[in-house]
Amino acid sequence: MIKVGIVGGTGYTGVELLRLLAQHPQVQLVAITSRGEAGTAVSDMFPSLRRRLDLKFEDPASADLRSCDLVFFATPNGVAMTQAPALLDAGVRVIDLAADFRIKDVAEWERWYGMSHASPDWVEKAVYGLPEHDRSGISKARLVANPGCYPTAVQLGFMPLVEAGVVDLGQLIADTKSGVSGAGRKAEIPTLFAEASDNFKAYAVPGHRHLPEIQQGLSTMAAQPVGLTFVPHLTPMIRGIHATLYARIKNDADFQRLFEERYRGEAFVDVLPPGSHPDTRSVRAANLCRIALHRPQQGKVLVVLAVIDNLVKGAAGQAVQNMNIMFGRPETEGLWQLAVLP
Amino acid sequence: MIKVGIVGGTGYTGVELLRLLAQHPQVQLVAITSRGEAGTAVSDMFPSLRRRLDLKFEDPASADLRSCDLVFFATPNGVAMTQAPALLDAGVRVIDLAADFRIKDVAEWERWYGMSHASPDWVEKAVYGLPEHDRSGISKARLVANPGCYPTAVQLGFMPLVEAGVVDLGQLIADTKSGVSGAGRKAEIPTLFAEASDNFKAYAVPGHRHLPEIQQGLSTMAAQPVGLTFVPHLTPMIRGIHATLYARIKNDADFQRLFEERYRGEAFVDVLPPGSHPDTRSVRAANLCRIALHRPQQGKVLVVLAVIDNLVKGAAGQAVQNMNIMFGRPETEGLWQLAVLP
Amino acid sequence: MIKVGIVGGTGYTGVELLRLLAQHPQVQLVAITSRGEAGTAVSDMFPSLRRRLDLKFEDPASADLRSCDLVFFATPNGVAMTQAPALLDAGVRVIDLAADFRIKDVAEWERWYGMSHASPDWVEKAVYGLPEHDRSGISKARLVANPGCYPTAVQLGFMPLVEAGVVDLGQLIADTKSGVSGAGRKAEIPTLFAEASDNFKAYAVPGHRHLPEIQQGLSTMAAQPVGLTFVPHLTPMIRGIHATLYARIKNDADFQRLFEERYRGEAFVDVLPPGSHPDTRSVRAANLCRIALHRPQQGKVLVVLAVIDNLVKGAAGQAVQNMNIMFGRPETEGLWQLAVLP
Amino acid sequence: MIKVGIVGGTGYTGVELLRLLAQHPQVQLVAITSRGEAGTAVSDMFPSLRRRLDLKFEDPASADLRSCDLVFFATPNGVAMTQAPALLDAGVRVIDLAADFRIKDVAEWERWYGMSHASPDWVEKAVYGLPEHDRSGISKARLVANPGCYPTAVQLGFMPLVEAGVVDLGQLIADTKSGVSGAGRKAEIPTLFAEASDNFKAYAVPGHRHLPEIQQGLSTMAAQPVGLTFVPHLTPMIRGIHATLYARIKNDADFQRLFEERYRGEAFVDVLPPGSHPDTRSVRAANLCRIALHRPQQGKVLVVLAVIDNLVKGAAGQAVQNMNIMFGRPETEGLWQLAVLP
Repeated sequence: MIKVGIVGGTGYTGVELLRLLAQHPQVQLVAITSRGEAGTAVSDMFPSLRRRLDLKFEDPASADLRSCDLVFFATPNGVAMTQAPALLDAGVRVIDLAADFRIKDVAEWERWYGMSHASPDWVEKAVYGLPEHDRSGISKARLVANPGCYPTAVQLGFMPLVEAGVVDLGQLIADTKSGVSGAGRKAEIPTLFAEASDNFKAYAVPGHRHLPEIQQGLSTMAAQPVGLTFVPHLTPMIRGIHATLYARIKNDADFQRLFEERYRGEAFVDVLPPGSHPDTRSVRAANLCRIALHRPQQGKVLVVLAVIDNLVKGAAGQAVQNMNIMFGRPETEGLWQLAVLP
Repeated sequence: MIKVGIVGGTGYTGVELLRLLAQHPQVQLVAITSRGEAGTAVSDMFPSLRRRLDLKFEDPASADLRSCDLVFFATPNGVAMTQAPALLDAGVRVIDLAADFRIKDVAEWERWYGMSHASPDWVEKAVYGLPEHDRSGISKARLVANPGCYPTAVQLGFMPLVEAGVVDLGQLIADTKSGVSGAGRKAEIPTLFAEASDNFKAYAVPGHRHLPEIQQGLSTMAAQPVGLTFVPHLTPMIRGIHATLYARIKNDADFQRLFEERYRGEAFVDVLPPGSHPDTRSVRAANLCRIALHRPQQGKVLVVLAVIDNLVKGAAGQAVQNMNIMFGRPETEGLWQLAVLP
Repeated sequence: MIKVGIVGGTGYTGVELLRLLAQHPQVQLVAITSRGEAGTAVSDMFPSLRRRLDLKFEDPASADLRSCDLVFFATPNGVAMTQAPALLDAGVRVIDLAADFRIKDVAEWERWYGMSHASPDWVEKAVYGLPEHDRSGISKARLVANPGCYPTAVQLGFMPLVEAGVVDLGQLIADTKSGVSGAGRKAEIPTLFAEASDNFKAYAVPGHRHLPEIQQGLSTMAAQPVGLTFVPHLTPMIRGIHATLYARIKNDADFQRLFEERYRGEAFVDVLPPGSHPDTRSVRAANLCRIALHRPQQGKVLVVLAVIDNLVKGAAGQAVQNMNIMFGRPETEGLWQLAVLP
Repeated sequence: MIKVGIVGGTGYTGVELLRLLAQHPQVQLVAITSRGEAGTAVSDMFPSLRRRLDLKFEDPASADLRSCDLVFFATPNGVAMTQAPALLDAGVRVIDLAADFRIKDVAEWERWYGMSHASPDWVEKAVYGLPEHDRSGISKARLVANPGCYPTAVQLGFMPLVEAGVVDLGQLIADTKSGVSGAGRKAEIPTLFAEASDNFKAYAVPGHRHLPEIQQGLSTMAAQPVGLTFVPHLTPMIRGIHATLYARIKNDADFQRLFEERYRGEAFVDVLPPGSHPDTRSVRAANLCRIALHRPQQGKVLVVLAVIDNLVKGAAGQAVQNMNIMFGRPETEGLWQLAVLP
């Protein structure tokens, strides 16, 4: 059994992690912390867990996280970078679901996140946890930086093209749509039901924090800098990301086959038959990315459609997948739930 | 392994049954039939099942259902009554998720469902599949009539009161609200997104087919006729039933304790602490009924709030629960998924 | 032209008032105040008003409200009772859309609203602004207490029955469902999209502040105390209230005719033909209450279905209707927009 | 008064046309036809119109459309081309809200719409009804081809750039998102609430019928062929289109000023301040297109965000705008309703 702790479990990523871990056959949930909710039963906050999870939120100061094999940080940006190092030094492995360790260029991170970094050395040691890109690195990592939701969908959608160098790397466009849970469980007016329902809008078009993360990932895959226009949109649904990706074809190829071969053997990436249009509900509550390719009017633009559940393959599910890899478990263990449709 | 067949798997009840059975460790899915979709891969119709369910819809005429231990009918009303008897006679056990065998009074059934019944004798032998009411009968049944969605929520909510005789049995009111999936996967204008979204209405107030089913159930529990006003409403959500039940108190009692004791040991009924308001998402995609009790202003009216997922505890999940009981399996086997929240 | 001011226009009631008043041919909008947003253009906060409303929020201290003929208070509870009296004393007429002047029994008000009342004398002088009940009182009022959203729907639905004394006044039940905008434009977790969407729940079953308001109104109409069980629910839609009302018949009558005659000539109450099920969208964005009657199975329980738009007939629209009455304008002036469907 | 008839008023475009025309001060609604619903009161089908519109659907054969000044066709594709010519020959002016007269290249139209055209000569005479592009042509037209919903948003968003020739005309991308009402009031499974809610997907990526219409329009504006990748998506909202447009900058310019000057004086196009993100609800139920411009990271890609209500500026509202122009009425007459927010 893997002894697991969670720091900060009161957000959507936290409750999804609890849902998955509570059903994982090789996980023993040891502790979950929350400064604000110390003493509250987890199932009082999330009634979906009633009678199945008998844990209370503990104060971070008193929780015995050092006896864990692995600690997940499901905290706001800036927390893990101050609290994880002590655990890491004590031999506990860490998966950070926030952004603290995702960007290798610390100055760049500080610019986008508006704070100075508390442990740049751990940024260097951290492994970016996109299993389909770096399974081997993750297996040996002490600290995994779990990817963001948009970056997961966009990177998986572009990866085969970028690695193969068959598209114009200076002109990539990612038009992405996210369900509202992507904004987190925070009391804010723009994500109220009466604001976000029956409504659609773009946001952060001048610059979204996931842009440098995606650019770093794609540039690594391409082994050269990549130019990307990234436009996120808020969509009136709870879960789901739909990435519509545009790339100009440089070298003609059998793109369908390229994708199928690149993802052959991947349990959590599903390349759909030609002509398909994946919908977000086909991955709702499941750890999956489904991808379809189109080349409209046989023109010069390739369109990739990629869908994930932002809370699963875009956050908690991918974190559990990384945990399985880190601890030598079968990658699908505890992650084999089918999507909930309708 | 229980060898299972499904007749008519193209509706929401069917795909939910597939989701649950595909994850059940003791089930071998042998055949699924659909007259209209024979030859189509199930996962082409329901992409959520891609790479996890490798079955094709078969023509009902050619499918080998007689080799099954159990056949589920997820068909429109009127199909099972004509097709199930031959299977039953061949020794196959049957669970009908439609209404064909729910009402013992055949004339009453014919009045509400507008057709004559093709096998009244099997109506008599059928066991009404509400496990919390008649677990023992179900365990021995050859034919189980799986309850309707509203009837499940309303009966579980009223049962402790009606059995104990502490409320006025002539004046029960059930104000019920259902998600749109309750109307089935049928192309009809009133359940289009642009009609049902951002909208709320009552329907079938003069008389809904679930009324006689509920009255029969409650009258059986009370051992006397029960008077019920039943008003269903269409709610802009996919899944979920919320039953708000009103009963006039006849004999004062510790109602909270009455419910807790009645449902002690029940895996799939959760009596919430006093003062609670269960929400439908707390049972989304889970086989559970959550119940809370209120007595506003300490008056004479008891208010019971009961929530289920209409497709799970209100249909496919309860059917699997009945299967487990019929085949001597642990009742929770394959049904232990946590609710998906948010 | 009626010179109008608005105190507190940053909530949903405020923006709806602005929408209606900006289209009212006899209204001159003089000032709108907001402590927090002073200096902000109204159309920067509500882009729906861009190019049509050229006003800035003003500081309440500096706004020239005394030159207005009428001031609307679209403020949280407790504001109008401290700020309206000075205006009233200066001869300005006032419509309060909050609850400050709705309950005649000040002690009762203080118990439900948790504060002591700052101007009990104005409570006495205030007229409760339900035009279909007291048009004449409103026409002469200096201060109108605009009814709450639930109270409008429930009172209009019960009024003909209660006035006629044909139902059991001790056993009324109001099962009400509201869109999420009823909770206001406040940053709170329970009304986030990811919490309230695809979800349904009751709330405040032990006691909701609209209960005493409804009881006062119905008791006035009945000229005797009325017993009411009131259960509100949160519904995943933006606008709309659906009240499902249950009354035990005491004296048989032609109830359909009773309603039609009671509301004959009312521009904003529409009694539907027998057998109808009004939906909330049929009054979306319109100042209307649509009502239908049912007597299921010809039994002893009468079911009344009443729908309004909580922000229009349940708030801002009714306030404008009251304004028209107070200033001798045609009651439908500026309120003649058709419902938006779909 | 303009005497108006409507052919085919049972769809969403039809009911929206009724809503607008019933509130238009210079319109007399003479007749509305529907083969299937002849004899039904319009307000029985659309209760939102109760007590405000006292018309019955008439059989197309018997309706006196020739006495009208103007007939709107709100029919499926292929109807107006067979029925409009007789009216036109009789001197009645016609606005077709379907696609029959939109594409000048008849062979191209036949390829995309899968039927042969019944009146190619009227295609030639028809004027494409985008007022901001060809107000003068419309004013003199006998037959106006009202633009599609996507084409309205995409053309208004690209028009200033294309006319000015400042972007690469071979590489335009339109990533568009539509509410579900865009699919019409047709009983079909993919647009059921339980399918389309809480879900997002692209559709028709290989080729959508609005592609040739947009290309024709943009090519006319550019006076040269234009290359466009067009990807539509189905969004879980009732109304609204959000077009996210990408263009590579060829010649640097003050793009904000370009748009502001191009649309100066346009009542129904609103260019937002730099940095804005228009949301679809800011135009809900209003005849408006709101547009914002971005140039992310000061790069080579210009991003245009354009929103309309697909049923108003994308259909019925634009048709009324065209009617006003054709009959010399003020362009905003009857179209001055504010957007409904929230």
